[in-house]
Amino acid sequence: MIVLTGTIRIPADKLDQARPLMKAVIEETRKEDGCLFYSFGEDVLQPGLIVIAEAWRDEAALGAHLGSPHFTAWREANSGLGVSDRQLTVYEAVSSKPL
Amino acid sequence: MIVLTGTIRIPADKLDQARPLMKAVIEETRKEDGCLFYSFGEDVLQPGLIVIAEAWRDEAALGAHLGSPHFTAWREANSGLGVSDRQLTVYEAVSSKPL
Repeated sequence: MIVLTGTIRIPADKLDQARPLMKAVIEETRKEDGCLFYSFGEDVLQPGLIVIAEAWRDEAALGAHLGSPHFTAWREANSGLGVSDRQLTVYEAVSSKPL
Repeated sequence: MIVLTGTIRIPADKLDQARPLMKAVIEETRKEDGCLFYSFGEDVLQPGLIVIAEAWRDEAALGAHLGSPHFTAWREANSGLGVSDRQLTVYEAVSSKPL
């Protein structure tokens, strides 16, 4: 499995514009084959910081996502939204269990 | 490494009460030995759903966190806050790289 965690930053005055775009990419992504978990949250401490958590069946599923039309549309919208500070880490996981 | 992702639910009318408690546990947890990433976000789609993403050096570091005074205080506060639907997955990761 592949797990991805991290943050991106969206200027506070762009958040209202960003929310429907995030909604669209989240909803489409969750339909993808191999998507186990895909959520964006607005950081509890820092307004405009977006916490991202994803889990994928394998590297190929993540790769397909990164090339998908909805993800491409989201990434193309990022510069207009002033998205910055992408700090995302991809982990290769060998087991999983509920906490 | 250990990566943890998932969600908990907090009733909308308890969020204002929950935020300073989440802030306290996040800030103390980030000081812990072996804590690589620890963030809570308010889900972009569902008010009251809290997205949690964590990364730890190893199982021992996560274990120490789960037994820490600040995490214990947070968990003890959970019932008063009406926290429900804990859906957290712990992954054992063998490698990591930036996206």
